[in-house]
Amino acid sequence: MIVYERPVRFEEVDAARIVFFGRYLYYAHEAMEHFFAGLDGGYPRLITERGVGLPAVDVRSEFSAPLRYGDRLRIETTTAKLGNRSAVLRYRMRAEASGQVCATVLHTVVATDLAAMRSIDMPSDVRAIFEAHLE
Amino acid sequence: MIVYERPVRFEEVDAARIVFFGRYLYYAHEAMEHFFAGLDGGYPRLITERGVGLPAVDVRSEFSAPLRYGDRLRIETTTAKLGNRSAVLRYRMRAEASGQVCATVLHTVVATDLAAMRSIDMPSDVRAIFEAHLE
Amino acid sequence: MIVYERPVRFEEVDAARIVFFGRYLYYAHEAMEHFFAGLDGGYPRLITERGVGLPAVDVRSEFSAPLRYGDRLRIETTTAKLGNRSAVLRYRMRAEASGQVCATVLHTVVATDLAAMRSIDMPSDVRAIFEAHLE
Amino acid sequence: MIVYERPVRFEEVDAARIVFFGRYLYYAHEAMEHFFAGLDGGYPRLITERGVGLPAVDVRSEFSAPLRYGDRLRIETTTAKLGNRSAVLRYRMRAEASGQVCATVLHTVVATDLAAMRSIDMPSDVRAIFEAHLE
Repeated sequence: MIVYERPVRFEEVDAARIVFFGRYLYYAHEAMEHFFAGLDGGYPRLITERGVGLPAVDVRSEFSAPLRYGDRLRIETTTAKLGNRSAVLRYRMRAEASGQVCATVLHTVVATDLAAMRSIDMPSDVRAIFEAHLE
Repeated sequence: MIVYERPVRFEEVDAARIVFFGRYLYYAHEAMEHFFAGLDGGYPRLITERGVGLPAVDVRSEFSAPLRYGDRLRIETTTAKLGNRSAVLRYRMRAEASGQVCATVLHTVVATDLAAMRSIDMPSDVRAIFEAHLE
Repeated sequence: MIVYERPVRFEEVDAARIVFFGRYLYYAHEAMEHFFAGLDGGYPRLITERGVGLPAVDVRSEFSAPLRYGDRLRIETTTAKLGNRSAVLRYRMRAEASGQVCATVLHTVVATDLAAMRSIDMPSDVRAIFEAHLE
Repeated sequence: MIVYERPVRFEEVDAARIVFFGRYLYYAHEAMEHFFAGLDGGYPRLITERGVGLPAVDVRSEFSAPLRYGDRLRIETTTAKLGNRSAVLRYRMRAEASGQVCATVLHTVVATDLAAMRSIDMPSDVRAIFEAHLE
């Protein structure tokens, strides 16, 4: 499990005064970038130099409690499944103060050659990080 | 079925040069606001004057093809399910030029008193619009 | 003058319940894409096929009244200045209902070869649109 | 001077592959929230409990070099001017690796009673932070 924390920002709430539901996928991606911080050059080098990415093919989100401005978010990231070319990340998002789970996101990604937009075998350094955090 | 179209904007792509996966939920919400355009005062008056909203409790997205800058998006919105207090919206998102489905989003919402953050029966005018577009 | 209208969206307000100040530059860019709709393939083809863009070098914004969820925005775009390689766009942003000016943005852009990130002479079709809307 | 650092994120670049110009005002606001971290409850409590905010009335941005995905951003925040009800924040935004200034933003804010949307004298704890970082 890799933990990532960050505050809810001023502009991340909507007209109902709670964090906009689409925003949680941005949080998930931030947590994923953090999850891969151990790659040489991090996730950015994977994308910009190696031309490999992890586009989403399926995302399931459950929302159980609202987050508000002033809350601090704690995201626990694990690998729920790992295949040859795909993996499922699970993000458990909590309000840091109370520990309450506000959202859970299951994010299925496929290792992809970004130039050809074709799936490829998961690169071994990426796979190693997924494996290290298998549930 | 209510159809909503809009271009992919300059800043909606990511470092992999395709529309960012979280962005699709923003598109879904835009389509939902359009879906409810027939309410008196539209979705904004529901939120700001009547204090009623439709927060998401569950969202499932499947991504089948990338969208890029310059594409035009066509979103077909229907009601997949309708209960007393909840409903499921389905958004079929196509690249307008080719007609190809790029993403499908299933969005479960619950009628909610925003001040109390408690579920309520679906207001009748909101229900009428859901009913008119049941699959 | 080219006029562009769009609603303020649900997620564009901030925790102070008014449109977030940074959001106005997104509105400005939307209006600019609309301003250049007359280009063959629009602004997207300029960027993605011709490799030419109009990055900002200077932006000045004055905010005179807040916008809120439910407001409709009317943006009047004109060319305030036109040089060989640069131009200044002026966006007058009004609440459509009242006509009140909420923000004025002066946006200095430079014609740029995006691969080399070097300024170039303004392409003639781009220049023609700027000229047609000079104040 | 208060320093705030953060990476450029995956979805913060645009179709020209550089950080979108409007994004810099989001960075500025993040830096401002960090600038006021020393307030009791931080900037969030000022907004949500005391009903006081610092809306922008004027923002001037100069862009001198692009930022890209993978860059790390360093923002140096100072008080350029301080009045009874208003203040000017200056954000010097650098690419952390090279130290090069990419953007400078001058952000004029006015202490505001958010319920009445009327200017007020700067609260003394807010003023103290501005004063501590006067250029």
